[in-house]
Amino acid sequence: MRNAVIAQSGGPTVAINASLAGVLKYNKENAIFSKIYGSLNGITGILEDRFIDLSKKLEESDNFIEKLKLTPAMYLGSCRYKMPLPEDKPEVYEKIFAFFKEYEIDAFFYIGGNDSMDTVDRLSKYAKSINSDVRVIGIPKTIDNDLVHIDHTPGFGSAAKYVATSILEMAHDTYIYKLKSVTIVEIMGRDAGWLTAASVLARNSYSKAPHLIYLPEVAFDPKECVEDVKALLEKQDDVIIAISEGIRDKEGNYFSASESKLDKFGHVQLSGAGKALEHLIANEVGCKVRSVELNILQRCATHLASLTDLEESVKLGETAAGLAAKGETGLMATITRTSDEPYETVYGGHPVCEIANGVKAVPREWINERGNDLTKEMVTYLKPLIKGEPKLSFKDGMPEYLDVTHLIEQ
Amino acid sequence: MRNAVIAQSGGPTVAINASLAGVLKYNKENAIFSKIYGSLNGITGILEDRFIDLSKKLEESDNFIEKLKLTPAMYLGSCRYKMPLPEDKPEVYEKIFAFFKEYEIDAFFYIGGNDSMDTVDRLSKYAKSINSDVRVIGIPKTIDNDLVHIDHTPGFGSAAKYVATSILEMAHDTYIYKLKSVTIVEIMGRDAGWLTAASVLARNSYSKAPHLIYLPEVAFDPKECVEDVKALLEKQDDVIIAISEGIRDKEGNYFSASESKLDKFGHVQLSGAGKALEHLIANEVGCKVRSVELNILQRCATHLASLTDLEESVKLGETAAGLAAKGETGLMATITRTSDEPYETVYGGHPVCEIANGVKAVPREWINERGNDLTKEMVTYLKPLIKGEPKLSFKDGMPEYLDVTHLIEQ
Repeated sequence: MRNAVIAQSGGPTVAINASLAGVLKYNKENAIFSKIYGSLNGITGILEDRFIDLSKKLEESDNFIEKLKLTPAMYLGSCRYKMPLPEDKPEVYEKIFAFFKEYEIDAFFYIGGNDSMDTVDRLSKYAKSINSDVRVIGIPKTIDNDLVHIDHTPGFGSAAKYVATSILEMAHDTYIYKLKSVTIVEIMGRDAGWLTAASVLARNSYSKAPHLIYLPEVAFDPKECVEDVKALLEKQDDVIIAISEGIRDKEGNYFSASESKLDKFGHVQLSGAGKALEHLIANEVGCKVRSVELNILQRCATHLASLTDLEESVKLGETAAGLAAKGETGLMATITRTSDEPYETVYGGHPVCEIANGVKAVPREWINERGNDLTKEMVTYLKPLIKGEPKLSFKDGMPEYLDVTHLIEQ
Repeated sequence: MRNAVIAQSGGPTVAINASLAGVLKYNKENAIFSKIYGSLNGITGILEDRFIDLSKKLEESDNFIEKLKLTPAMYLGSCRYKMPLPEDKPEVYEKIFAFFKEYEIDAFFYIGGNDSMDTVDRLSKYAKSINSDVRVIGIPKTIDNDLVHIDHTPGFGSAAKYVATSILEMAHDTYIYKLKSVTIVEIMGRDAGWLTAASVLARNSYSKAPHLIYLPEVAFDPKECVEDVKALLEKQDDVIIAISEGIRDKEGNYFSASESKLDKFGHVQLSGAGKALEHLIANEVGCKVRSVELNILQRCATHLASLTDLEESVKLGETAAGLAAKGETGLMATITRTSDEPYETVYGGHPVCEIANGVKAVPREWINERGNDLTKEMVTYLKPLIKGEPKLSFKDGMPEYLDVTHLIEQ
C-alpha cells in the first residue's frame, strides 16, 4: 500500500473539514492508503515541505474524524496560490512530483473552489504527460455555490443557514420599534447570488423579511430600489433588504462605496455595497437606515452548521477517495439531485477540466421580473440544503473545536 | 384578584423575553393576578391603549412560556421614550394611572435598562404621591451589563457567548493563511467595556485571540496600539483585536471615523471605531487589515444563547412578581453572586432610585496596566455567565420562534 496527500485551498467554509474527514473515513473503512499526509496551506505545503501525518492524528485521538467534521475553516490551512502553466514554471511541477515520489504518493486530493479545480486540472494533465500514475482528484467547496456540474457545493448549505437564521433574528430585532426603518444586509457572493438568495429562507408564517432581495445576476437599478422601498414603507414599518456584495449597474460597475481593486486571480475585491445603499436610502427616503455586513462569520460559523451540508461534505470526501481507489484521475467528486421532495441525491465524478474556472450563475428565471425577489423554484432548490443541526460539543459554554496549533505556530 | 401589566423597553437582548416568561411562570404557579396584560412598545402602549392579553396567549398555546424564553428581541416590542417629570407633563402620568384604574391594575412591571429604571422610579414615586396602591417593579436587562447594584444583567451572558464564540470561529478563519494579518472586531458598549471584555472567553488551549483588548474605561492611545500590533506581528502571523465601539482618547473624544450625534437621551450614537482602527493600522503597519462589526446580531442571536443567562432571566422575572405579590414597589429585581466556584447567586430587590441612571464601569484593576488586556479577576467573573446551551426548536433547518405578528401589523 502506498500513500495519499490531501490539501485545502481558497476561502474557508464550515464544511471543508468534513470533506477531509470523508477521505479519512473512507480510508479507515477500506484501507486504500497506508498513510494520508496533510499538506499545510494548500499546494504550497508540498512546495515547501510543510505537512503533517493525518494517519497519526487519527491514531492519537478517539474521535478525530467527528471533531474534524465540526471544526470551522481549514484544519490544514489554506493558500491563494495561482498554479502556473508547466511551460512557464516547470520547476513547480518537478518539485510537486518529486514530493509525490519521495513520499510514495498514489493520490492527491485537493479540496477547493474554482481556482483549486484549475490546479487539479493542470496537475492531472501534467501527470499524464509524464506518465505518472498519481491520481489527482478534486473535492468541491465554496459558500458561493457557483461551481458547474454539481447540484450545489459543500459549505453553501451551512452559510445559507447562517444567513437565513441571522436575517430572521435581525427581523425580530427590527420589528420592536414603531418607526419607519430600513435594514440592509450585505451578503458574500462576488459574481453569483446564491448565498444572497438563501436569505429567502428567513421568511416564515409571520415574517416576510427580507422584503427585497438583489442579486448580481440582474443589473441593479438604484432608482427602482428606492421606489420599491418607498412603496413598501407606505404599508409597513420595517423594510429588510438582502443584497449581494457584488450587485452592479447596467454598465457592469459595482454599486460599491469604495474603490475596487483586483486580487491576483483577477477577481475584483469588494466592500461597501451595503454602506452605499444605506447612504442612498438615507438621502432619498430619509427614514432610519442601517446596514449590516455579515462578513466572515457567514463562512466560518460552525455553531450554526447545516447537518445536511456536513453529511454531504463527508460523502463527497468518501466519493473522492473511492474514485482514486478505482484509479480515476482528473475528476471532481460531484453530487447530483434526483428529487426535490423527498430530497434525493447521487454521488459521482465529473472531469475537472469542464469545471475549472466555470461559474454557475443563478438562472434568470429563478429571479422575479422586477429583479427584487426570487421565484418558488429557488425556494424549492434551497430548502433541503439547510436542514438538520449537528450536535456540537461545548465546554464551559464555548464550542470545542480541534486544536489548530500546527497552523498558528508554522 | 386584580391584574398586572408588563412592558419591555430599550434595546433588544436575547434574554428579555425570558424575564417576561418568568413573570408569567410565577403567576401561573402562584395565581397572584387574574390577568396579565402586555403593553405594546413599552410604556407607549399604555399611553396609546395598545396592549395584548398575555393570559389568553398562555391559555391558547401549550408551551407559550418555553417558546417565549427562546424568542429573540422583545415579544411586546420596545420604545425609546423618555419619561417626563410629573410637573412638566402631568397628563402623561394621569393617562397611565387612568389606564391602571380602568384595567384594575395592581402591579406594573417594566423590563429594561437604565432609562427604563428611571421610568420605574418616577412612576413608583408618583404612585406614592397620589396614594395609589399600584406597585411598580423593574426587571433589569441590557447586553451592556452596566447597571449598578446587580452582579450582572440579563442578556449580557448570551451576548458574551455570541461575542466569544464568533471571535473563536473568526480566529480559525484567520489562522489559515501564511501571511501577516490584523483583524479588528468592533463590539457594542458605549460607556462600559463589559461586552468587549467578554471576548477574552474566546481564548483556549491553542488560540490566544483576541491578542489585544481595548475597553472604553481606559484612554485609547493609537500610538501604543500600533506599537503593540507591530510587536505581536514580529512573533506571530495573525493579530486579532477586540475593541469597544466606545473607545476614546485622553481628552475623551471618541476614536471613531464618523461624526458623533446625540440621541434623545443625550447618549452619543457611534459607528466606526473598527473602521477607524483599520485605516490607522493599514497606514502605520501596512499588512492585511480588516474590521468586522458584530452589529445587532450580538444582541439578538438566540441561536447562541447562554442557558445560564436565560434561566437567570426567568428567575429575575419570578423574583419581580414575588416582590409585587409581597406589596413591594420602587424596586428592581436583582441577582447577587455569593460564590464564583461553584457559581452561586441569590435573588432580591433593590431600590430603583439608586439604580436609575447609574453606570457600572469595568473596574480599572480588572484591566492590565498597559490597558490592552484583562486580568484573571475578569475571567473569573465572566466565566459562569456563558455556560450551558438551551435546546432550540428547529423546523426545516430554521429556528422556531414565537409569532410576532402583533408587532408587525400594529
